[in-house]
Parts: sequence; structure tokens; C-alpha cells
Amino acid sequence: MPRGAPAIKIEATKALGAEIVPVGPTSGERQAKAEELAAQYGYVIIPPFNDEKIIAGQGTVGLEIIEDLPDVELVLVPVGGGGLVSGVATAVKLLSPQTKVVGVEPELAADAQASLRAGKIVAWSGEQVGRTLADGLRTQRIGEINFDHIRRYVDDIVTVSEDEIREAMRRLAMGARLVAEPSGAVTSAAFLFHADELPRAEKTVAIISGGSVEARLLASVLEGEWLEATIASD
Amino acid sequence: MPRGAPAIKIEATKALGAEIVPVGPTSGERQAKAEELAAQYGYVIIPPFNDEKIIAGQGTVGLEIIEDLPDVELVLVPVGGGGLVSGVATAVKLLSPQTKVVGVEPELAADAQASLRAGKIVAWSGEQVGRTLADGLRTQRIGEINFDHIRRYVDDIVTVSEDEIREAMRRLAMGARLVAEPSGAVTSAAFLFHADELPRAEKTVAIISGGSVEARLLASVLEGEWLEATIASD
Repeated sequence: MPRGAPAIKIEATKALGAEIVPVGPTSGERQAKAEELAAQYGYVIIPPFNDEKIIAGQGTVGLEIIEDLPDVELVLVPVGGGGLVSGVATAVKLLSPQTKVVGVEPELAADAQASLRAGKIVAWSGEQVGRTLADGLRTQRIGEINFDHIRRYVDDIVTVSEDEIREAMRRLAMGARLVAEPSGAVTSAAFLFHADELPRAEKTVAIISGGSVEARLLASVLEGEWLEATIASD
Repeated sequence: MPRGAPAIKIEATKALGAEIVPVGPTSGERQAKAEELAAQYGYVIIPPFNDEKIIAGQGTVGLEIIEDLPDVELVLVPVGGGGLVSGVATAVKLLSPQTKVVGVEPELAADAQASLRAGKIVAWSGEQVGRTLADGLRTQRIGEINFDHIRRYVDDIVTVSEDEIREAMRRLAMGARLVAEPSGAVTSAAFLFHADELPRAEKTVAIISGGSVEARLLASVLEGEWLEATIASD
């Protein structure tokens, strides 16, 4: 796991029986370590996003959305390495071509948006992406297979600020009674604060991809000490 | 509304267009004020629990539980005035007589348990019930109609401590990613800390009857400052 991963994620993984090997800060180091351990012990590497089976698995989220809400007009998906958005966008577009799919990244880890704009994969440094609270989206570069899926099926990628992520977490907890981790709250942040950058839509789904947030961080978000900072719009 | 109702409930009610008249601390005062306003303006009083239609409405929660989980063995229900537990117990027992239904109250507002034990309605003072964090369960006495339903269909009523309520709120937020208000968390507290007082059951449903909790209270619960207090069991 990345050095600096939230204790709640480390503990939950341990509770499932895993031995944790902290490696970081770059994903290159983690890949190398995983390959070393796999060679040494005969382990099978499960890639986090740049893999067709992983993408197909993530795509089941898109299948469920279309099953539950066949006339959905817009689906917002958090983007880290690009696995989830690849799978969801492919499933949604093949079943419902008129539905828009938009990825959401933190401003501080916007390598996928940069890649989509540049027309080629753009990498960010570990120091750059390490600045965002959204620890699940600190990936430095999206995968090749993911980039192909994103170019083909994703309509756009928008970004949100750290304060917008905190405010979205607060509103999800107080309004929807849902605990979201920062990486999971980016889509609600885009819906709340960047509507002008999104396709017009009545029926929108925001995927909340995780709720593993440290109690102390959630408490500080709820107390809104950061609220003096300006929120873009409301 | 009761004086001392959480600001979040007052604000949410105002947002629906209501004018708020704070009356308290006793429910007798609120009843008198409601009757006065009804007489003056021709309003219709909607009783909170001691009413057959209200009980029938609350009973739909029981219908949904049996629909979703026909082989449920135990249903835990928060008890304030007794409306919810009356409706749920009636629906559950008529559809699934072998399923146990147990009410849950805060120790500090255990008038329904006292009533069930005494075989007649026992009232607690406003000062007594006002001590619990569970503002939704600060009712001083259950209704006559509710008492009849409880005696006929509820297997038992158990109580939970204030610290158990806080710990249940914390675990619901961190483990189930659900924001529960204290009144809604009492059933999870009973499940977690009073299993020895409950009927043996594999499939248990705990009704979480509300999530209107002040941000500051939820934050303090998450930070676990009260955790030095002893929790009965784990």
C-alpha cells in the first residue's frame, strides 16, 4: 500500500488477513515491489486499473446504474488511475449512448484531465498528486488501456477544489446521511459547484466510490473549520 | 416543537415551509398549545403516536422488512411514544408470528419498559427524559393505544446507556457509512452491547429511525472523546 495511506484502510485490509507492505511514494516503486514479491513467492499481481478484467468488473457499476435508472442523463465518476471510469463509461455508453459520462478529479491531481486535453497520457509527480486529501485519487498517470476507454467513451473530465470536496463530504453526511471519503465525494462536489461545466441534465448519478475516511478527518469536516475559505458557488 | 429540539430539525422543518412554535418542556404543554392553535385557526392536529392511522402508517416499515427479509428472526425498534414500535410489531407479528420484536429505549427515558414491567402506563418527568441525548425518544409516557399494541405484539423492551448510543453512532458512521441520530442508533447499541438480553437470532434488523444529528455532536462522537468511559461489552 502507498506510504501515507489512511490508517482506516490499512486496518481494514489487515482485518481481511493481509500482510501490509508500505511502499512509496511513487506508483513505479509499488509496481516494482509487487513484481519482486510475485517473483519471489509466486503471487499473482492484481493490477488496480490498467487491466481489461478489472475494467470489466468496474463496469458492473455502470450496468447497475442503467438497470436502476434507465433514463439517466449524466453519470459522474471519480477518476484516479481510470479503471472505474473506463468500466462505467463503456457499460453506460453501450447500453445508453445518449447518456453523458463525466470523470471528476481533484484539481491537485488532475493528470487524467491533462491527458484528455493533451491527447496523450500526461504524468504528474508523486509530490503533486500527494497534495490532495483524496488519497484514492493520487494516481500519477492513468493506464494505456484506460486512456483508450476514456477517449472513446468519456465526454469530459472536470476538477474540484479541496474545499469543495470537504463541503461535499459535509453535505453528504448531513443531508444524505452518507459517510463518503474525499475520493468518493468528488462527484458530489462537481455536481454542487461545477454545474456550469457539466452537460445539462435532470437525472444525474454521482458515484460515491468509497467511505473509508478517518474519524478525525470526518469530524473536522463536519465542524466546518475550513468553511471560512470561499466556495466557488452554491 | 419541544424547546431544546436540535437546530437541524428546526431548520429542516422551516425549510418545508412550517412556522415553528417552541413549547415545553412537557408534552402536556405541547398538546394544550396544539389544541389551542387548532381551535383558533381550524388546524387539524396530527398526533405523533397515539393514533390508529399513525400506527398503521408506521406499520409499513414492518411490511417492508418482511418483504425484503421474509425469514427475519428479530426486529429491533426505537421506542419514544410507541407509535413506530406499535405499527412495526403489529405488521411483523401478523405476517410472521415467529419473528421476535424488541423495543429499545435509552436508560434515561425508559418509561415504556417501566410500563411493560408494571402492566400499566408509567409516566416519567420531563426532567428525567430530558437527560438523554436521544431527543426523539424523550417522550414522557406512551399512548394508551400504543400500550395495547406493545402488550400484545412486543416481546420485550431493553435499554441502552448514553455511551452505548454514542459508540453505536460512531460504528454506524465508520463501519456502515451511515449517519444516525442518537434516537436512531439505540437499536444498533442494543444489538452491539445487550445481545445477552435479546432473543437468540441470526437474522436481525435494527431500525435506524432518523439521521438528523447536529454536525458538532456527530463530530464529537467521531472523535470519541467520551470513549474513556466503560462500554458494557463488545
